[in-house]
Order: sequence, then structure tokens, then C-alpha cells
Amino acid sequence: MKQTLLSLLDAIHSANPELVFEVFFWDGVQTKFGEGEPHFRVRVKSDAALRRLLAAGSLGFADGYIGGDIEVEGDLGALLRLGVDPRFQARRMSWGARLQVLRHALLTRNTMRGARRNIHHHYDLGNDFYKLWLDKSMTYSCAYFETPEDSLEQAQAQKHDHVCRKLRLKPGETLVDIGCGWGGMLIHAAQHYGVRGVGCTLSDQQVAYAQERIRELGLDEQIEVRNQDYRKLKGTFDKFVSIGMFEHVGRRYIPGFMRKTQGLLKPGGVGLLHSIGIEHVKWTGGWVNKYIFPGGYLPRLSEIAGSLSSAGLVTHDVENLRLHYALTLEEWARRFEKHVEDVEAMFDEAFVRKWRLFLNGAAVGFRYGHLRLYQALFANGLEADIPLTRRYMYPEPSPLESSAEPLETA
Amino acid sequence: MKQTLLSLLDAIHSANPELVFEVFFWDGVQTKFGEGEPHFRVRVKSDAALRRLLAAGSLGFADGYIGGDIEVEGDLGALLRLGVDPRFQARRMSWGARLQVLRHALLTRNTMRGARRNIHHHYDLGNDFYKLWLDKSMTYSCAYFETPEDSLEQAQAQKHDHVCRKLRLKPGETLVDIGCGWGGMLIHAAQHYGVRGVGCTLSDQQVAYAQERIRELGLDEQIEVRNQDYRKLKGTFDKFVSIGMFEHVGRRYIPGFMRKTQGLLKPGGVGLLHSIGIEHVKWTGGWVNKYIFPGGYLPRLSEIAGSLSSAGLVTHDVENLRLHYALTLEEWARRFEKHVEDVEAMFDEAFVRKWRLFLNGAAVGFRYGHLRLYQALFANGLEADIPLTRRYMYPEPSPLESSAEPLETA
Repeated sequence: MKQTLLSLLDAIHSANPELVFEVFFWDGVQTKFGEGEPHFRVRVKSDAALRRLLAAGSLGFADGYIGGDIEVEGDLGALLRLGVDPRFQARRMSWGARLQVLRHALLTRNTMRGARRNIHHHYDLGNDFYKLWLDKSMTYSCAYFETPEDSLEQAQAQKHDHVCRKLRLKPGETLVDIGCGWGGMLIHAAQHYGVRGVGCTLSDQQVAYAQERIRELGLDEQIEVRNQDYRKLKGTFDKFVSIGMFEHVGRRYIPGFMRKTQGLLKPGGVGLLHSIGIEHVKWTGGWVNKYIFPGGYLPRLSEIAGSLSSAGLVTHDVENLRLHYALTLEEWARRFEKHVEDVEAMFDEAFVRKWRLFLNGAAVGFRYGHLRLYQALFANGLEADIPLTRRYMYPEPSPLESSAEPLETA
Repeated sequence: MKQTLLSLLDAIHSANPELVFEVFFWDGVQTKFGEGEPHFRVRVKSDAALRRLLAAGSLGFADGYIGGDIEVEGDLGALLRLGVDPRFQARRMSWGARLQVLRHALLTRNTMRGARRNIHHHYDLGNDFYKLWLDKSMTYSCAYFETPEDSLEQAQAQKHDHVCRKLRLKPGETLVDIGCGWGGMLIHAAQHYGVRGVGCTLSDQQVAYAQERIRELGLDEQIEVRNQDYRKLKGTFDKFVSIGMFEHVGRRYIPGFMRKTQGLLKPGGVGLLHSIGIEHVKWTGGWVNKYIFPGGYLPRLSEIAGSLSSAGLVTHDVENLRLHYALTLEEWARRFEKHVEDVEAMFDEAFVRKWRLFLNGAAVGFRYGHLRLYQALFANGLEADIPLTRRYMYPEPSPLESSAEPLETA
């Protein structure tokens, strides 16, 4: 078993000879790959953890790492880059591990009740936890960086503004926001574009926070945040937005989500779907679903495009912002580590390892792996008021460059 | 039979009451829909033409119209809009008509020999014919209009420049152009961006014209146009472009086309695929394949995205330019009519009707129907030099706005 792992690591190392690392096993066996100071040291502390790693790939690694049977010193991101190597990706999960993933998927389907439970699992960990490492607008999705040096607060305000400009929001228009989180998008659209908005989320804590913030800002007449499943939303709107929620819909519910989207838009209405996606890769297992996002499903761009079209929605524009999400996640991971003692005080060590793995693993996935972030702009039918060219999305100078303060914090 | 057609027209007319038209049958029966001056009059001149129309939909109409058994006076575009109505689209073709379409598809597959024959059928009609109604750069693909008032010459130069900017072409870089037509794209890239390029086409007349023009312009050291199938191209390039050729690849050859594209790009190389696409609609038959583009196949965006991904190409950006192609085709149709006597002198009446139907039908398809024009920008792997934002595609002022003369004609 040790030899299987070492052969795999040797093959990956041959393709990345600049990477230096050491592997230690429970029985004292140790191997070093490369010369000089190691980027990281990994300790596999039991035979069971090794078997699990080999049988279940990234899920096996996550089980070991979160459980404490696999320890990593040094650069966790460098280790996680091994996981996106095609040699590692090409390994097949054992049938036992696949059955576990399938069983978990069946237990976490996004029925009306299941969706609420799944969202609760992640988003109701406590606003105090998210406040530790999110920006001030509590925006928990990919930011938009004009340059890599932009602050996170600035980049999130720019993201909201980029979306508003793509949608060409105008005063008095109505906007529906599916999966509105802590309300940052709706608040930006109401404050800077004068729209009237309705948002929904299934997270009790997000609703409480968003409603309070909206009251504080005096926006209660303009925007409303509901504790409601998107499938129960009624009415029609001029504009539609959904940011970082589509990942929670689940594969079998995608056609219904798109039909609902089409139904919520007036004829000629314009919508923007902002979602993580994944390249065409072999199915690589379920550690994120098991530990982070039960019920989640990452679509391919072909699925996004196909399901929009099947619902009668016309795709006008798709932008891949993968590097923006890498920058966002890298900053979240830095802030998380800065406040890691507070996290430990709130939860436990396994929680810290789980989140450290999640934030770093996702950052690696966007920068080096198969994760993508797509913004798809679409219209309900052909009579939409969308300009001939996309020049309108790129005013010079950028509206947020010219203001000293980021708009969001104004 | 007459009653079947009249009921269908009545249903379509009820949804479009502003449309006024008259239908005349061979036996003197006539019906008027709507009040006032008709937008068009259509004459079905035989029972056989009516049967064919009802059995084979748009293919049946094309057979009748091109053969002279169906005549249209007045606004052909208004009539063709009936064809994109969902009530017409929902009709099923007879099995006999489907078999004919299938048989035609099998006879026009894009094998090495078949592809050459198919391209010859359309593009070797004579450079003198295409010169009658194309712009001066002989660009036979969707132009790019900053405003609907742009001239066609200007819009084609802007299209070439839009593509060059998306690809960030730099002096000395190598560019491969699959389906290079009469050479307009390569010439623009060589003159204005200093690249070295290789293009291929299977049209003898395009090759002859492009080679002569390249010599005249003194660009023979910089660009080369080959009479070659894309599958036989060798070498690797910094940048890749293919404009209006992907429609000819054929469904079964798409994965191979994408693998070839990936193989032609250096690691980190960037490519742009410019292609007509179609929304998710029921298969509506083969008149364009029968009369205009044997071997053609219009992909859905989901197929474009999926096949790029399967070949290891990372999609960064997709732009839908459908209204630009409507504007382009409407201008081509106007120029065609302006020179229709020259066309009649070169060919015959059936040819004129075929092309009139093609240009007007395609314009209607882009403006009111299921046709789309996608530009997909992609990279071979993740290490591509693509900026964080798409702002670089939209310099202010537009480089072509600031020059008095369109660049292409300079």
C-alpha cells in the first residue's frame, strides 16, 4: 500500500520536479521527493488512513486530514496541487467509496425540506463566524478584481457593480435575487441603482442579518428579504440575479430552476446567473458534498447553456472569472488563519481543519484545477433591451476607480 | 389540405394580428388575413406544392419557392417570420421527408473528399458572384456593428479588429486561421498586428483570390493561404482563429475538430471560435443543407462548450452576436437585390430565388428565430496570458472610430 502511494507521488513529482516534499508513515518509513527545504511534510498516521486515501482519492484525503489521521506541515496549497494532477485525477474510486458518496447524495437531495436542511448546515454556522473572514458587506461569493491588488471590500463592491452594469439596472426596476445571502447584492442595487428588490434564502441567520441591515440603512421600502425556497417565489420581475446559489440546486432540479427563472422574468427581462462550474472531468468524488455543501452539484458550462436554452432563455454573454475566485479564496484563507484562534474558540480542531482544507482546496481548484466561475447573462426571449456591444459593461474610468471610497462601504 | 394550411395560418395570424397577407391557391380559392394593404401575397400554384409544404415544413416551402410552384409578392421577410412561429415549428415533418433529409445527410458527410465537394458546392460559385454583394474585404461572415448605421465595410473591419483584440495579437506571434475564406482576417491581423499567419480553405477560388491579394499587398512573407483540409494542418501556433467554418464541420466531426484545435495551439495558446449556433429546438429540417450548405451542422452553445472542454480547452468568454448577423445579412440581401440582374445573367431564376430565400431566411432566423452567432474565446490549458477582466477588449475610443477611413480599406 505504501508503495502504491509512493509510486503515484513519484510520477507526479517527476512532472513537477521543483516541488520538494517529505512523506512520513506511521511505522517510521519516510521518503523525500526533491532536493532542499521541503515545501510541505505529510504524515500518514495509520494504515487505515492510507487505505482510505488510496480507495477514495480526495474524499479519502479529506477524511484523513479532517479526522487528524493525516497531518500536513507547511504549504497545504502545494500539497493540494498534487490532487489536481491528472495522474491523481485518473485514479478510480473504489466501489465502496462510490456507494458511500451515492448514499450521501441520496440522503441530501434538495427536496423542499432537504434543501432547507442542506442550507442550514452551511450558512447557519453563525454570522459571527462568517464575520471573522468575509468582507464588511458579508459577500460570500467570487469577487471581481480590476487588479490583483484590490482589497476584498473593493473587489466585492466591484463585483456587485459589474453585475448591476451587466443587467443595466435602472431606477424603479424590479429585481429578484435568488439565494440573496446576507443581502449585499440587493443593498448595492437599491443604493446605487434605485431598484426595488426581493431576495430569498433558506438560511435563518442570513435572513435575520439582512433584514436588520436593510432596516438600519432605511431600505425597507425598497427591498425585502424572505426566508423562502425559490420554488415558492411568485410574481414577475424586470431583472433576475442569482449569485453563488445555483451550485446548491442539484443536478435533477436544474431544469425546474431554469423554468422558475423564466417564469420570474417578464418577457424581455434580463437575468444574470453567477455560478461555480467545472470542466469536463471524470467524477472525482464527494468530499465537498460530505463535509461542506450537502446537496451541492457543480454544473458544466454545457449544462448551464443547455438548460438555459431549454427553458427559452437566450444566452447573450458568458464570462469565466475563475482567477477572481482564486484571489477571493486566497484572501478568505488568509483572513481565516488570522482569526483561527477565534474559530477554535467557537468550534473544534476538526472544524478548523475542515475549513482550512475547503478554503485552500477551492483556491487551488480555481487557480490550477477544474473549477470555473461563470457569469451568464441571458434574456427571456428576443425582445430584450441589451445593447449591440458589451462596451456598456466597461465604462472608462471604472465607476469604482474614480471614487476614493469603495461604493459598498459608503 | 388547403384547410390544414389555412387553419395553421389563422392560428399564427391570431398571434400576429398586425400582419396582413393573402393566400391564393391554384384553383382560384383565396383567403385574406387581416385588414388593409397586404404585406405579402403568396400563391401556391399546385396541389403537389401544397402537399409538400405541409409534409416537409420549411424544406417543403423551399422546394416550392425555389422550384417556382410557390410565388411570393411583397415582403418575403414578413412571410418567413411565419416560419419561426412556434405553431409552425411545432409541426412534425412526415417520415418520407425525414428520410429524404437523412439520405441527403448521408450523401454529404464531411469525409476528406466529401468536405471538399461540400465546400466547392457553395464557395466556388465564382468570386465575381460574391464580389457583387460582399464588402471589399470579401468577408463572408457576421460583421461587428458598433451602431446599426455602420457601413458593412466598416463593420467587417471592426469584426476583424474585435477578434484581434480578443486574441491580443502581438507582432511576431503566429496565427492559424481554419477556414480563412478570401483571406480578410489574416490580412487584417498581418497588417495591423504584425502576426505571421497560416490559413486553410478547401475552396479553389478562395485560395486563388487570397493568394493574389496577399501578393499585391506584399504580405507573402508574413501570411500563407493553403488549399488544405484542416485535418491535415501541422505545426503549433500562438493563436488560433476560425470564423464561420465550424458550421461546416458536421456533428460527428466536432470532437476531432476540437482535438485538432487543441493540437494546433501551443500550451497556453489562445483561440477564438466564431460560429453560428442554434437554440435548443426541435429538429426543423434540412432545406439549408439541401440547397445551400451540404454537410453543414449548426451546434448548440452547449455542444460548443462541451466539446471545447472535452478537448482540454478552457472557455474564457462567450459573446452572442446574433443581431450583428441580422444586420449583416439584411445588408447582403439589399446588395444582392441591387445586383440581381447581374446574378440572373450569371445563373438562372431558380438560383436567384434560392439565394433570396437563403439571405432573407437567415436574417429572419437571427433577428426573430433560433439562430445565434457565438464567439467563444478559449485557451489551451490554464497558463494563458489572458487579463483578469475583459476591459482590454473595449478601448475608448474604439480604434476604428478614431480613424476616418475603415482600416480594412486603407
